[in-house]
Amino acid sequence: MKSFGQFLQSGDWKGEKHVPVIHVPETVKAGEAFDLKISIGDAIGHPNTLEHHIVWFKVFFHGDGEKFPVELATFTFAAHGEGENFTEPTGLTTVKLSKSGTLYAQSYCNIHGVWENSQDITVA
Amino acid sequence: MKSFGQFLQSGDWKGEKHVPVIHVPETVKAGEAFDLKISIGDAIGHPNTLEHHIVWFKVFFHGDGEKFPVELATFTFAAHGEGENFTEPTGLTTVKLSKSGTLYAQSYCNIHGVWENSQDITVA
Amino acid sequence: MKSFGQFLQSGDWKGEKHVPVIHVPETVKAGEAFDLKISIGDAIGHPNTLEHHIVWFKVFFHGDGEKFPVELATFTFAAHGEGENFTEPTGLTTVKLSKSGTLYAQSYCNIHGVWENSQDITVA
Amino acid sequence: MKSFGQFLQSGDWKGEKHVPVIHVPETVKAGEAFDLKISIGDAIGHPNTLEHHIVWFKVFFHGDGEKFPVELATFTFAAHGEGENFTEPTGLTTVKLSKSGTLYAQSYCNIHGVWENSQDITVA
Ligand SMILES: [Fe+3]
Ligand SMILES: [Fe+3]
Ligand SMILES: [Fe+3]
Ligand SMILES: [Fe+3]
Repeated sequence: MKSFGQFLQSGDWKGEKHVPVIHVPETVKAGEAFDLKISIGDAIGHPNTLEHHIVWFKVFFHGDGEKFPVELATFTFAAHGEGENFTEPTGLTTVKLSKSGTLYAQSYCNIHGVWENSQDITVA
Repeated sequence: MKSFGQFLQSGDWKGEKHVPVIHVPETVKAGEAFDLKISIGDAIGHPNTLEHHIVWFKVFFHGDGEKFPVELATFTFAAHGEGENFTEPTGLTTVKLSKSGTLYAQSYCNIHGVWENSQDITVA
Repeated sequence: MKSFGQFLQSGDWKGEKHVPVIHVPETVKAGEAFDLKISIGDAIGHPNTLEHHIVWFKVFFHGDGEKFPVELATFTFAAHGEGENFTEPTGLTTVKLSKSGTLYAQSYCNIHGVWENSQDITVA
Repeated sequence: MKSFGQFLQSGDWKGEKHVPVIHVPETVKAGEAFDLKISIGDAIGHPNTLEHHIVWFKVFFHGDGEKFPVELATFTFAAHGEGENFTEPTGLTTVKLSKSGTLYAQSYCNIHGVWENSQDITVA
């Protein structure tokens, strides 16, 4: 068995337009709703054409001390020029967590594969 | 053939906690990015448990005079209590449109089926 | 409010290459697994290019006498020429039903919008 | 940055009910459609309840010598007891490949996280 983990690319989002950026508060309260926003290309925009575009973001959460991660959300960007309409790779949703841990985001470019990032979050 | 259209339920979001609410500017510029936000339960919150929760939102756009609608985005809310983590039904992304038309949002509750709403938008 | 139901197109799958075809046994046993297969273009194939392709199928079930339909599955076809790889619009999964009712399939073409079909099924 | 790759679990599908099994011919012809089937629990079935179920499968392909993998399909299993209806974790679609490489499947259990498997395929 070969692991897909070898294809999870990362990098500095300031210089790499595929890396998802996870925007959350540093500290949140247990069970209290907060905004979780994912973007890419905060410094350099990614193309958005039928031939080359960001297809989706996925977000998982791994609670400290837990064995398994839990999926939080998937954002699918569907329009890439059909009828001159475009959906750009920004995804925001609302989340409630019960303990501190780490958020993991993945973004998929139809040409350049899967990219990832992580962000620790403290649940007070 | 029976049409699924018979199951697309609607109502006033102030009194019905399943109706998606489409938050966009009234007027946007052609080809200029703007935030498209979908929420439900702005007045009355929807339960979020393993047994009963909002699973996804879908958003389509129909340009005035066009024959077919184009899908813009799908938001999937994945956590409904696993490890005491929850994803609430809010979805936001960034969109560029080329002409005026109508946005259509759908929300799916695993118990109460599919609900919809629409919102006209002017592209100046 | 305008209903998205107006955009649910149908037709005879023998002459229309967008209509999903629902392949199931006529009669199944309650709680017994059976194959549910969706295809399109059984008579006329649909194009599969970056510019024009089938993006997804969705399948719902409405049990006789029930108020709401339940989603069974979504199939997303992701490759349309990237690296000369292609995913064609066929989707099959395994389903268990508890009572007779109607299956509803939808297919989405990025150019020609949403198409639908239905199929009654008897649960003995 | 922590990599999500650490959470991609694997194992022998004969003893582990979460591992996706990739069913494809050993050899296919370039550009010729073939069935790609993913299942889990061929030896031991996985539970299918609201509290504990398989949510989705994802399939990627990595062509020999290519830098990036391409997503082929996502299968989402939506019904886990709603109205006593169930979608079981089987996913089949039709694929055309242009060169030899490796297929990667992932399965997500809402309780036990992400599992993976790979399968080499020869394109003659
Ligand atoms: Fe790219
Ligand atoms: Fe509900
Ligand atoms: Fe078409
Ligand atoms: Fe499990």
